[in-house]
Amino acid sequence: MALVLGTEELTELLAEIFPQVAADFRIEELSENHIQMRLLVQDRHLRPGGTVSGPSLFALADVALYAMLMARVGPKALAVTTSASIDFMRKPAAGQDVLADCKLLKLGRVLVVGDVLMRSEGSDKVVARASMTYSIPPE
Amino acid sequence: MALVLGTEELTELLAEIFPQVAADFRIEELSENHIQMRLLVQDRHLRPGGTVSGPSLFALADVALYAMLMARVGPKALAVTTSASIDFMRKPAAGQDVLADCKLLKLGRVLVVGDVLMRSEGSDKVVARASMTYSIPPE
Amino acid sequence: MALVLGTEELTELLAEIFPQVAADFRIEELSENHIQMRLLVQDRHLRPGGTVSGPSLFALADVALYAMLMARVGPKALAVTTSASIDFMRKPAAGQDVLADCKLLKLGRVLVVGDVLMRSEGSDKVVARASMTYSIPPE
Amino acid sequence: MALVLGTEELTELLAEIFPQVAADFRIEELSENHIQMRLLVQDRHLRPGGTVSGPSLFALADVALYAMLMARVGPKALAVTTSASIDFMRKPAAGQDVLADCKLLKLGRVLVVGDVLMRSEGSDKVVARASMTYSIPPE
Repeated sequence: MALVLGTEELTELLAEIFPQVAADFRIEELSENHIQMRLLVQDRHLRPGGTVSGPSLFALADVALYAMLMARVGPKALAVTTSASIDFMRKPAAGQDVLADCKLLKLGRVLVVGDVLMRSEGSDKVVARASMTYSIPPE
Repeated sequence: MALVLGTEELTELLAEIFPQVAADFRIEELSENHIQMRLLVQDRHLRPGGTVSGPSLFALADVALYAMLMARVGPKALAVTTSASIDFMRKPAAGQDVLADCKLLKLGRVLVVGDVLMRSEGSDKVVARASMTYSIPPE
Repeated sequence: MALVLGTEELTELLAEIFPQVAADFRIEELSENHIQMRLLVQDRHLRPGGTVSGPSLFALADVALYAMLMARVGPKALAVTTSASIDFMRKPAAGQDVLADCKLLKLGRVLVVGDVLMRSEGSDKVVARASMTYSIPPE
Repeated sequence: MALVLGTEELTELLAEIFPQVAADFRIEELSENHIQMRLLVQDRHLRPGGTVSGPSLFALADVALYAMLMARVGPKALAVTTSASIDFMRKPAAGQDVLADCKLLKLGRVLVVGDVLMRSEGSDKVVARASMTYSIPPE
């Protein structure tokens, strides 16, 4: 039930695995069943009107659960997203980073499920909610 | 932001609107953004092996958000489920009621979104997670 | 790639596994990647106004993919629903059966994914769309 | 029931509204209830191993339904994604564009629902399936 990787090791791992996008994200908090991931919002994440795009929020939820999973099972495991459902509820605030709180709901041998609530920094209104499932292929 | 209906009034409303199934459910807790609904598990909710069926868990999540919504907007509003996504994570315990904790994430003029975590009584493991969206038709 | 079970054998299997609800459903068509399942609508499937309830549509989609899967892998395999997402788009017609067309999109060793379109008999308007995932536990 | 915008006008509209990403997509086919959208796969869409990333497939499904909707209701309407559910079923082929076939299932006054099947060019295996809902805010 302990963490196999800490924040620093996870950060390095993300940079290695996702060199093109890892700089967009920063781990803010990490515990056994929770991770908080920040999307460092930049121009390429925006839609007209200055709000963060849907695909950027999707990517944030996806990387949050991926990092949570790696923190628990270590870097050797392959893992792929198998399904995601996401509700967009409010416009993210313009010019603000987005914070994602991901809770690990299930860490099975095959399937891993997490819940992600996202909000703009400085607000407690949920802008989007995602549930993500990863599968860990049998070795 | 206050509750328009209390537990008793909600219970009566459910009995009136869903006469065939209302006796399966009981409101355990109610506050402005949260409701806890119990599924009083009976034979007809079960699958072989004694676990609660998927459609029964779906119905539980659905009625939980419906009751939460009615508690906030009152009995006059029409409301229909427009989408649902549900992850089944563990087998519910045999012979136990299921408790659903529903959080209201958005109460818009048109769309209402809630998150539901379900677990067997006496356990804190999540057996299923649902997100439900209701729409309130324009009058 | 062939069918392991035909319509008759499937019907018997459903009756054995789901004795309480099997009589609600009837297989109308079956081929390698498609099944059409009918919900024989009765009072207990209805909501006020005479429309078919959300949980009944969920159950229809669930049993459709389950039968499709059994038709392909045979009755010995255990299989459990792991996730479902469903959109409710229109009111089902009052007093009509609902027909579900389920397409098998993936039949993996572990995960099985199907798409289900549901409509009221006599109409070609989609009343609900579901995607269902089953997992087959490793033996 | 007719198309309000054709392929050329839609292409211009996407370029105007999504200047940063419109060059990634190309409309291949368009009819009243169907659009085929191509993701012109480039390095930034890839994950290690050369497969197309989940967020890129999400963006493809999202833009496909958006374009389908604009083709039907015209460029003046505001529209926002309200929910999405996506199943990832197979690895996209390395070095191939991805083709998305989007079917319009519902075009309501408020809610718009579409189904999207995605596959790598040259294959008929579905790599991902998405259902997307847009809402059109009341004016």
